[in-house]
Parts: sequence; structure tokens; C-alpha cells
Amino acid sequence: MDTENLGQHISKQFNQDLENIREEVLAMGGLVEEQLKKALEAFSQHDIELANEVIANDDRVNNFEISIDEDCIKILAKRQPAASDLRLVSTVLKAITDLERVGDEAEKIARMAVEIAETKDQSPLNGKLPYSALQNLGNVVKTMLHEALDAFARMDADAAIEVAKKDKKADDEYDAISRQLMTYMMEEPRSISKVLDFLWSARALERIGDHAHNICEYIVYLVQGQDVRHLTWDEIHRLVKSRN
Amino acid sequence: MDTENLGQHISKQFNQDLENIREEVLAMGGLVEEQLKKALEAFSQHDIELANEVIANDDRVNNFEISIDEDCIKILAKRQPAASDLRLVSTVLKAITDLERVGDEAEKIARMAVEIAETKDQSPLNGKLPYSALQNLGNVVKTMLHEALDAFARMDADAAIEVAKKDKKADDEYDAISRQLMTYMMEEPRSISKVLDFLWSARALERIGDHAHNICEYIVYLVQGQDVRHLTWDEIHRLVKSRN
Repeated sequence: MDTENLGQHISKQFNQDLENIREEVLAMGGLVEEQLKKALEAFSQHDIELANEVIANDDRVNNFEISIDEDCIKILAKRQPAASDLRLVSTVLKAITDLERVGDEAEKIARMAVEIAETKDQSPLNGKLPYSALQNLGNVVKTMLHEALDAFARMDADAAIEVAKKDKKADDEYDAISRQLMTYMMEEPRSISKVLDFLWSARALERIGDHAHNICEYIVYLVQGQDVRHLTWDEIHRLVKSRN
Repeated sequence: MDTENLGQHISKQFNQDLENIREEVLAMGGLVEEQLKKALEAFSQHDIELANEVIANDDRVNNFEISIDEDCIKILAKRQPAASDLRLVSTVLKAITDLERVGDEAEKIARMAVEIAETKDQSPLNGKLPYSALQNLGNVVKTMLHEALDAFARMDADAAIEVAKKDKKADDEYDAISRQLMTYMMEEPRSISKVLDFLWSARALERIGDHAHNICEYIVYLVQGQDVRHLTWDEIHRLVKSRN
């Protein structure tokens, strides 16, 4: 998919339609990034008001998904796109499902932030939970999401592969947090419920990494014209290199 | 979407293409149902061999997704479907993503079954974990999945709505298991890691309920021609009734 090729379409309106859905995806991505950033901030600052803002804004993410979905269906019906244009539309259809789910995970983190903030003063674990490790994991997946959207904007398969490889780092950081939280639960069984809220939040971040990873796979498909889901990243790398 | 309308297509081959992807979805659904059934059996019987079979078979689910996805793209490119045919293709594109994820959750349950089976004799919780509650939850989501695929086969929006409403029951059963497991963790802090494996399995089942719910929303969209995601089920019910 070469963005310059867009200029070759017979219909100017068609170009505009395709450009619009690309821009809508990036706008939706921007909103989702904002939601994730605020959810993480609300979590670490015990900011209930900010968390509630994230929860309330999830509707905007959902509306974005429905509206882009409808636009894609309209393009398929009216313009009958072929080849790379068709791949763009089908990529967008998939990517917005992942973005919507990233929004759901951000909302979950915001809900956990409220629960933890409300009980924070009574917990014997007060001050012991691995907030900085969670922020590190949050930063890894925030970067992955941002770079995945960036790779989508530039239709850059190589960049997408580099982003997707970071998912391993996110998984490792999640595993470390999970082990640490298990130790806390054993030491302070009365705090298990609160520690689980913390664990669900780490899990939500880990899943956001998975969604960014999915989006990167779609980008490789979009650019290379080959479905790379369920291949290893080494296999994908060889594939991309063999075509460059 | 009325299956009788399929007969009105100019091209017989087009009818055949649409019928093929419907059948492929049902075949993929059958495999995923089988994976879930075996994963639950492996979990309750501590059957490591059966669990490994489920894990190995996940590739078949993934291959189904890729192959149906390609078939949908081919139909979009070659046949330029409109109206209800286009909705069928876009519904299939979404439904197979959910089915593939149900497959992933079944694989997760199988992995947990292996971990739990391997440590079962050393655990002080031996015999105390809520296996029958987990099987009940498993039965609820297994039925949801089966009925969702059935509603898809019959293009039955009313049935889809009834299935989707069961998701509340699945959520409630999951919450009950989750509370019970928290009590165990407090009583037996040394077993926390094992109890968490059990909790992840319950969570995987709860998510399978969510995916069945998603598939039902697509069916309502397919039949009614209106996107109902993010509406409440009461709102959807009124909508369906107003059109019948």
C-alpha cells in the first residue's frame, strides 16, 4: 500500500473516502491513547475524579468504532474497492475492534483505580504495592500503541514489526509484577482483594500490548498483502526482507 | 437478511460463495465448541493428554480464521456484494475474530488444566476447589456459544437476543466463583498460585460468554441492518419488536 497510489484513483471522492477513514482511525487512536494515559495517571495518583472522566469517555470510543465501521461498509458498498484499497478497508475494520478493546481495558484500569483509591487508607499494604513497576509496564504499552498508530499512519511494515516485538517485553514485565503480587498476597492474605485489583490492572495493560501487537500484524498484511497472523516474528521479518 | 433471498442472485456462483462462508463459520464454530468441551473435560478430570490435544489443535482454529478471512476478502473483491450480502460478509469477518479468541481462551483453560494437574497432589486445597461451580459456568457459556452459532445458522435475531441475555448469568456465576476463591486464598496463602490458575480459568470462561454475546450482536445487525453494539438489551428488544 503506497499512499502515493491513492492519487491514481479515477474518483476524487473515493480518494477522499479512503483518506477519511484513515484519519478517523488516527483520531480514534488519539482518543484511546488519551484514555490510557489518564487511566494510568488516575491509578498512580489515586485520582477518582480523573478515573470517572475516563469511565464516562468510553462511550466516545464506542461511538467512534460504530461510525468508522459504518463508513467502511459504505465504502465497500458504493466504491467496491480492490487490491490495496480493499486491504485498507478490511485492515481498518479489524484495527478499530482492537482500539475499542484498548478503550475497554483503559476503562477497567480506571474502575480499579477508583476501588483502590477508596480503600487505600485502610490497607496494610499501603505504600508497598509495585506502582512504579506498573507505570513502567504502562509506559511500554503506551509507547507500543503510539508507535503502532504511527506505523499505520505511515504504512510502515518494518516499524510495525519493531513495535510488535516489544510485546515480549510487556509480557515479561507483567510476569514480574504478577510474581511480586503473589508474594504480597501470601504475606498479607487480608489484602488479597486489593492486590487482585492491582493484578487485574496489570493484566489489562498486558492485553493492551496484545492489541497493539494485533494492529501491527494488520499493518504488515496491509503493506505486504499477506496474512501474517500466527506466524512468528522471525518468519514475518524474513518475509518482509524478501520483498524489499 | 432472509436466506430465501439468496436465490435471487444473478450469479449462482455468488450464492455458492456466500453459502460457503456461512458453512465455514459453522464448521469453525463446531471446532471451537469441541475445543471448549475438551478443555473443560481436561480441567475437571486432570487429563493432561486431553489438555495437550486442545493446545495442539489451536492451530487448526487459527487456520480456519485466516482461510475464512481470505474468502471474505475474495468475495468483496470479486462480487462486490451490496445490502444484506455485504452485511453477511462483514458479520462473518467480525464473528471469526471472536471465534478465534474463544479458541484462545479454551487453549488457556487447557494450559491451566496442565498446571493444576501437575501440582494436584501437593496442594492443601486438594478437593476443596469449586470444580462443580466452574463446570456450571462452563455449561452456561458452552450453551451460549452453541445457541449463538445456531442463531447465526438460522439468521434468527430474536434467538440471538435471548442468548445474549444469558451473559448476565455467566457474569454472576463468575463473580460467585471469584469471591469463593478469594476466601480460599486467605485461608491457604501457600496455595495462592494454584488458586489463581483456577481463577484465570473461570475468567477465560467469562470471556467466552462475552464473545458469544458479541456474535449475537452481529447477528442482530445482520438481520436488522442496524448496529446495536453498545445499546442495552432492552433497547435492542424494542428495536427488533418495532420491526417485526
